[in-house]
Amino acid sequence: MALSRWLPAIDWLAGYRRDDAAADGMAALIVTLMLIPQSLAYALLAGVPPQVGLYASILPLVAYALFGSSRTLAVGPVAVVSLMTAAAAGQVAGGDSARYLAATVALTLMSGGLLVIMGVLRLGWIANLLSHSVISGFITASGILIAASQLKYLLGIPMHGDTLWQLALSAAGQLGGIHGLTLLLGAVTVLFLLWARGPLKRALARTALPPWLAELLAKAGPVVAVIVTTLAAGPGGLAARGVAVVGPVPGGLPAPTLPPFDAGLWQALWLPAALISLIGFVESVSVGQTLAAKRRQRIDSNAELIGLGAANLASGVSGGIPVTGGFSRSVVNFEAGARTPLAGVFTAAGIAVVALFFTPWFQFLPKATLAATIIVAVLTLVDLPALTRAWRYSKADFTAMLITVLGVLGAGVEAGVLAGVVAAVALHLWRTSQPHMAELGQMPGTEHFRNVLRHRVITSPRVLSIRVDESLYFANARRTEDAIYDRALHCDGRRHVVLLCSAINHIDASALDSLQALNRRLADAGVTLHLSEVKGPVMDQLQRSDFLQQLTGEVFLSHYQALETLDGETTREAS
Amino acid sequence: MALSRWLPAIDWLAGYRRDDAAADGMAALIVTLMLIPQSLAYALLAGVPPQVGLYASILPLVAYALFGSSRTLAVGPVAVVSLMTAAAAGQVAGGDSARYLAATVALTLMSGGLLVIMGVLRLGWIANLLSHSVISGFITASGILIAASQLKYLLGIPMHGDTLWQLALSAAGQLGGIHGLTLLLGAVTVLFLLWARGPLKRALARTALPPWLAELLAKAGPVVAVIVTTLAAGPGGLAARGVAVVGPVPGGLPAPTLPPFDAGLWQALWLPAALISLIGFVESVSVGQTLAAKRRQRIDSNAELIGLGAANLASGVSGGIPVTGGFSRSVVNFEAGARTPLAGVFTAAGIAVVALFFTPWFQFLPKATLAATIIVAVLTLVDLPALTRAWRYSKADFTAMLITVLGVLGAGVEAGVLAGVVAAVALHLWRTSQPHMAELGQMPGTEHFRNVLRHRVITSPRVLSIRVDESLYFANARRTEDAIYDRALHCDGRRHVVLLCSAINHIDASALDSLQALNRRLADAGVTLHLSEVKGPVMDQLQRSDFLQQLTGEVFLSHYQALETLDGETTREAS
Repeated sequence: MALSRWLPAIDWLAGYRRDDAAADGMAALIVTLMLIPQSLAYALLAGVPPQVGLYASILPLVAYALFGSSRTLAVGPVAVVSLMTAAAAGQVAGGDSARYLAATVALTLMSGGLLVIMGVLRLGWIANLLSHSVISGFITASGILIAASQLKYLLGIPMHGDTLWQLALSAAGQLGGIHGLTLLLGAVTVLFLLWARGPLKRALARTALPPWLAELLAKAGPVVAVIVTTLAAGPGGLAARGVAVVGPVPGGLPAPTLPPFDAGLWQALWLPAALISLIGFVESVSVGQTLAAKRRQRIDSNAELIGLGAANLASGVSGGIPVTGGFSRSVVNFEAGARTPLAGVFTAAGIAVVALFFTPWFQFLPKATLAATIIVAVLTLVDLPALTRAWRYSKADFTAMLITVLGVLGAGVEAGVLAGVVAAVALHLWRTSQPHMAELGQMPGTEHFRNVLRHRVITSPRVLSIRVDESLYFANARRTEDAIYDRALHCDGRRHVVLLCSAINHIDASALDSLQALNRRLADAGVTLHLSEVKGPVMDQLQRSDFLQQLTGEVFLSHYQALETLDGETTREAS
Repeated sequence: MALSRWLPAIDWLAGYRRDDAAADGMAALIVTLMLIPQSLAYALLAGVPPQVGLYASILPLVAYALFGSSRTLAVGPVAVVSLMTAAAAGQVAGGDSARYLAATVALTLMSGGLLVIMGVLRLGWIANLLSHSVISGFITASGILIAASQLKYLLGIPMHGDTLWQLALSAAGQLGGIHGLTLLLGAVTVLFLLWARGPLKRALARTALPPWLAELLAKAGPVVAVIVTTLAAGPGGLAARGVAVVGPVPGGLPAPTLPPFDAGLWQALWLPAALISLIGFVESVSVGQTLAAKRRQRIDSNAELIGLGAANLASGVSGGIPVTGGFSRSVVNFEAGARTPLAGVFTAAGIAVVALFFTPWFQFLPKATLAATIIVAVLTLVDLPALTRAWRYSKADFTAMLITVLGVLGAGVEAGVLAGVVAAVALHLWRTSQPHMAELGQMPGTEHFRNVLRHRVITSPRVLSIRVDESLYFANARRTEDAIYDRALHCDGRRHVVLLCSAINHIDASALDSLQALNRRLADAGVTLHLSEVKGPVMDQLQRSDFLQQLTGEVFLSHYQALETLDGETTREAS
């Protein structure tokens, strides 16, 4: 039991059967076909040599299979994390390519270490600080930013920058230098990939082909593009006419090594590493949970942290880039029938074979082809209508999302995410600092009390009923105190104020001070303060202070009971 | 009406009468006697020449009288703000005393400007981010820090540092250099002041003296100490024997001037200036509100910001240090019978007379005397038992307070306050990220539902009732979703889950996503999700999404109604 908490593989390995292997093998084949161009492309995006992308798709998959808790998550390089890696490594490398590689390895190891530490300390809940609005805005904006960053390979001109603005500026002066043949190749590839994802996929689904084969053919689009454009660039002579290609890729498997420890580098990279960990974890856990729910399985978010941490440590020692559970690959893995993490091990074996024997084939692979696969993949992540939906539902969520989008596009990925998180927290505090309050009356014929402004209710001439719709804490304590005091003083003749506490889930020390002040101020004005429907945990806490002794009035179990006691037999009037 | 919002003085000047003037004059006399040694001492604490303390007690009082909304607040230099000024100015001055003075003036002007801007933008609520625990911890720790920083004048040795640790380290090597005569003088003064505050005050209150005279005599302790020790140092020859004295103080009134604008200085000081504004505002508004409530008056926190801002701008142009409403002086002003801010104008006149004619008298005033007044004043602020009270009431409040105390003592005033604020916000998020949830049953014979673990209630075999005691937002959305789903699946036979929403005050976009996911997941498991007692504002918001269309169950006005509908005529069993 305890061992399987740390090594979830024990659970599924015990019951492994032959037909599981067949299903896992089939899924692995499809995922391997997807992963070959993706691992090369995301290496390009991260700014490292192509073989590094392959290395990040071997050992990390095995490590995740051992330690991760999701059955179907497909781990490996992903677009957003590669972009963040490039931004962080570019800032510390200062143009030195050896230092750049050292920085990506350091980022990978640190990110792995942080994830493992968070998992051991059970800090998975930290990911909740990233609200859906911030994540959604981040994914949309980084999709746009990634697509923009890949335009240089489609246009054949150098472009630099970590923000949309910098990229546009650096491109502006060079539009005359666009390489026509590269652009043509890239544009055709983009169109082909879009066609393969859309019309071709739908057409294949309608044919008599077995579903697994239709799936395989539809997902083979990028592989076909790689093969055709490589043939066009090498034997077809496009490379000789100026189309940039990947160039010689060394073959073989990575030898596990640890880089020399560089304290300055690690210090400069801890914040990006933390953000890469967090973003990677959130992406991974989101898709993992969605898929697990479909098969009534569960994800343990702390085991997930350790699994992803192990995968990144494995990637770091094989000289790779940060990895995480990719959204589209995991869905494909799931839909292709993967049953256990052994599918990931089979995928790793497939990529290892590629790294051992097929790397010479990539020499004439055009960079424009890889850029085209990236662009088509990330543009599906861009969801601008989400801004409209957020606007309609909640202005605060819209604001956080907009700040994240503008932050990522205008100031880079890190600054954008941080600005979004701070904005979401600040907006939450601001909103809860202004609690909704309602004066209540009794619904005729019931024991229920509702807002006098929304319902036809009966109010008491002697008792003012107020409901505060927020937990009381430092950000709203004084404001609530003043608001209740003002209402009480404006209702001449009401000698009692009853605070309905059903929506008060917590009263912190600041709010306790304010309640005590309110009690005193009302007493000075000849008004008695009562509470009703105080929740158990809140009551427990109040009993640890001397507030209940000071309270001029009583604490009633129900508001109805409070009114019955205080209002007695006096007449009530309909409001 | 509109004019009096910006210039509250119009209100009280209109009805001003002769006996108001008598009361205000008496209070002003007592406050002036307190303020003379205090203004000199807080100038010493802030590290500026003594006359600067006097300057900060003339024009600012007049400015506050015009713009402030409190009738009885006594504005001027205060200990905590002077300490913060010394820390901030010391850091940018680098030992250059002209730059140090320029920095204090810049801090005063910036702080005044920030306060006015906050007042105009109606940002008074920002002060609520400082929870009572953080404020209490801050005041206790800065009291200790201020007392420690004044020990150098009592011991006659140089000590430097902004933290307790630095002060202790710099003192450690010089204990042999303690000046015995200075220590004797300082110790006797401290004991005298403690006696005057305690036994003497109580004894005077029991005599037949008129109360105002008893009050005046009790408050005259520091003035007596100043006179006696000055005589001892000058004519008595202690200064000639090495007791450090204030030295020549230039007489006259400050000529209003604006310092040359130094962009670098202002940039380095904006954070300390913001904190000084915030802390000064909080101190001022706390005492102002306490005193106003006693006379059924009100403080407008935005007018207060403008009043304090005007006071600081006035202090800045007269070459002074940051000012705010002091706690002890305001209480004395109030108890001595001040009725209007004209008492502040009279006090300013008193200090102006001192600045014009009496400054030569301060030449032989021992610094140890001023240090003794500071130490006695701030040690009354130290409230270590508050830590115990906080521990008993709420571990989160205790933690925030402890972090603030240790932060201020160990890392300085600014770092301590910031750490406290961040800790308070983080603890609030952490707490609300783990909502209390209760399974509910019906209280026999009523329409009320209570926690099955706390009450003897009746539960339904077909319907699971759950109450979530927290607004749903990004920090708790996913956790709540999982928790409800798990509970629903562990209750075999329950085909309905009803979520009692009386404690849910808000549902943000992240939580909406989670509710939709919960609805789908429960539907997959054959369980219907219902809501009951949804608050008006929450219902309005849900209607702006498509959640209510997707919801498999219904929304009931009351939980009782939900159970009546869903449970029907089936038997119920007591739990």
